[in-house]
Amino acid sequence: MIYIKILFTGFSPFGLEKINPSWEAVKILPDNIKDIEIIKIMIPTVFEKSINNVDKAIQKYDPDVVISVGQAGGRFGINPERIAININDASICDNDGNQPIDTPVFKDGPTAYFTTLPIKSIVKDILKNNIFSSVSNTSGTFVCNHIMYGVLHLIATKYTHKTIRAGFIHVPFIPEQAISKVNQPYLELEKITEALRIAAISCYENKVDIKLIGGSVD
Amino acid sequence: MIYIKILFTGFSPFGLEKINPSWEAVKILPDNIKDIEIIKIMIPTVFEKSINNVDKAIQKYDPDVVISVGQAGGRFGINPERIAININDASICDNDGNQPIDTPVFKDGPTAYFTTLPIKSIVKDILKNNIFSSVSNTSGTFVCNHIMYGVLHLIATKYTHKTIRAGFIHVPFIPEQAISKVNQPYLELEKITEALRIAAISCYENKVDIKLIGGSVD
Amino acid sequence: MIYIKILFTGFSPFGLEKINPSWEAVKILPDNIKDIEIIKIMIPTVFEKSINNVDKAIQKYDPDVVISVGQAGGRFGINPERIAININDASICDNDGNQPIDTPVFKDGPTAYFTTLPIKSIVKDILKNNIFSSVSNTSGTFVCNHIMYGVLHLIATKYTHKTIRAGFIHVPFIPEQAISKVNQPYLELEKITEALRIAAISCYENKVDIKLIGGSVD
Amino acid sequence: MIYIKILFTGFSPFGLEKINPSWEAVKILPDNIKDIEIIKIMIPTVFEKSINNVDKAIQKYDPDVVISVGQAGGRFGINPERIAININDASICDNDGNQPIDTPVFKDGPTAYFTTLPIKSIVKDILKNNIFSSVSNTSGTFVCNHIMYGVLHLIATKYTHKTIRAGFIHVPFIPEQAISKVNQPYLELEKITEALRIAAISCYENKVDIKLIGGSVD
Repeated sequence: MIYIKILFTGFSPFGLEKINPSWEAVKILPDNIKDIEIIKIMIPTVFEKSINNVDKAIQKYDPDVVISVGQAGGRFGINPERIAININDASICDNDGNQPIDTPVFKDGPTAYFTTLPIKSIVKDILKNNIFSSVSNTSGTFVCNHIMYGVLHLIATKYTHKTIRAGFIHVPFIPEQAISKVNQPYLELEKITEALRIAAISCYENKVDIKLIGGSVD
Repeated sequence: MIYIKILFTGFSPFGLEKINPSWEAVKILPDNIKDIEIIKIMIPTVFEKSINNVDKAIQKYDPDVVISVGQAGGRFGINPERIAININDASICDNDGNQPIDTPVFKDGPTAYFTTLPIKSIVKDILKNNIFSSVSNTSGTFVCNHIMYGVLHLIATKYTHKTIRAGFIHVPFIPEQAISKVNQPYLELEKITEALRIAAISCYENKVDIKLIGGSVD
Repeated sequence: MIYIKILFTGFSPFGLEKINPSWEAVKILPDNIKDIEIIKIMIPTVFEKSINNVDKAIQKYDPDVVISVGQAGGRFGINPERIAININDASICDNDGNQPIDTPVFKDGPTAYFTTLPIKSIVKDILKNNIFSSVSNTSGTFVCNHIMYGVLHLIATKYTHKTIRAGFIHVPFIPEQAISKVNQPYLELEKITEALRIAAISCYENKVDIKLIGGSVD
Repeated sequence: MIYIKILFTGFSPFGLEKINPSWEAVKILPDNIKDIEIIKIMIPTVFEKSINNVDKAIQKYDPDVVISVGQAGGRFGINPERIAININDASICDNDGNQPIDTPVFKDGPTAYFTTLPIKSIVKDILKNNIFSSVSNTSGTFVCNHIMYGVLHLIATKYTHKTIRAGFIHVPFIPEQAISKVNQPYLELEKITEALRIAAISCYENKVDIKLIGGSVD
């Protein structure tokens, strides 16, 4: 029987928010889903430090898959990200007061990395469960993109002993956050966790992604 | 005195639209702006063909800068694009009926190209003229991204005799298009053309981009 | 002990929808909430017929409160309506093919009726349960406004034997409806039903509405 | 030849805004449009005071039509209002610090007044000029609704010597206001003024409104 290990990371709250739905959802994932062992860590919303934390966790746990999760206020559904780009361009400060503008994540890194998660499969499986989901083509230029790029770069350059798949999933606000704002979309925390659980299974079942319409005109 | 040549491309209408604001705006640009010669061509909203047309135009005109312009229905302002990615993922058919799903633009190309236009300068200069503008981090996965990637790849691999700078600018609907829809943002055609004129001057004046806040959290 | 009877009405699906969240939510309300007896009827999304059905139900059940519920696609939360106006102005056909334009609901009726439900109390109580809610100042000009006006007019002119309070609550799409659309807000069916349950209790507990900020600038 | 007099009112800036597009647009209307004399006054964004100012202007100028204009931030087009309701419910303070909650505009007034302007004609004529416009069914519960209700009530009770028609038109932000916000719709000042000019002519040409689809489902 094949048994795999998935490392999920969630962020600490940032900006004006008191909670971060990414960590709230990750932390209540079960420790085991079918033949998948789930490892869960919270990482700080801080440039570099966040990557260092995941670096250590990869060393410690030797996962087969790394799924980083982050908050995307204003989005309606679960968004597996297609690509991470080699740029830090912060419009607000991170939690340590850093605000890099147009600097690379890794100086010697390529322009971008495509996710190695089966994102079309994940979207299809989440939609089947009546939770809104679509592929996103930008993870921004803040710490979310930073961690996605960073982890893919570490895997491509440092953890080459086996094929570790990795990628990023953006999740909406949860009701507690949206209720104090005007007309902000949100998703129940349980739905987000359920979507992440489904994503874990999709990764387990789909080594290669499916071909499915899911692009964006602009 | 330095004299430069800028090739502007605009697209033919696609989807359900009868006009494409990108070509409408490009075609009424003046032939000369200060020391800039402006060359204007319409290209078909068709995978590959669009690139072939720009390829021929580069050969014919030997421009210093190539600015492709495309329609982004639903956006509020002028969006210089930061990055083009090596993927075709069409959610609708192009004008020749092609609908590639998750294929590369160029099989041997890198994952992505950053624009070589001074996008922060362009945004700053357009905003100074009271026209809404911001950097965008995704040009989608349809023909707009295709042409941006394609042109940057041609320049990187085929037109290496001099430094040709290139990139893409997304523009909103114009009033004629928005008026038949419900609550769709738009920009006057004259404003779009004015913004493109300003962008041309920014490219002329800024060989290197400025450092300016302009990133996106997600 | 005071015992009251609340008549809830929900609509049949209309337009392109296969279900109507108003009836879905109303039909699963419990038959009793504390000292409130809940009566539930489905009414057709049809001008006049809908009023005739509620008229018969008022005769049959002699309720103390009538709460009509309707679907408002595109809205984010639960919206108790402040006012009903004496106009039918249909932008689409009702389920019998009627499309009245600028006709009165009742020829001899006043321009408008204010709700007699404690809408500020309802909003406050629903928000306390982490479900988004706000007062709305328009119920449109289709069958939703029609039934709200119609019921208030019947109560003002025909059912004057006792003080029957009445009003209307608009509810968002549920996930099943929103998932096939792009970026449409929705609320879980259970949340909508929970909000209606809370509204029933608010009506029971607040004969007079509270003073609370809840207006709209435009 | 019939000659008519139209009194246009525009508001002073309120909330966080430094200009109010309603007055900016009204003040640059021509003094004469065909056989229409245009009178223009600025009124304060203050409960009661605003009505007193219009009251005095009606006495002074004896207009045939009164068109009050107000800012509706967030709206996309020109919105002639269908109805004014007898309520003041301020979510922010007016310019004198008043914040009435759920009080009547006039204690002895009816629940609501329908506009007596030909709003469907106005919308049709503005759309013909490629400016977005639609009928609105709520003018809110702040000073905009207050002035619309107040003027219609004065006409119904005090100025009964002739048939004065009156109503309200909501207009969007202008670019100067929208540019400092994120993704806010706006309309050029010249377009707003042009729309008001068209509205004046529509009022002149249509004593009775046309029948035209223009309602709202919710």
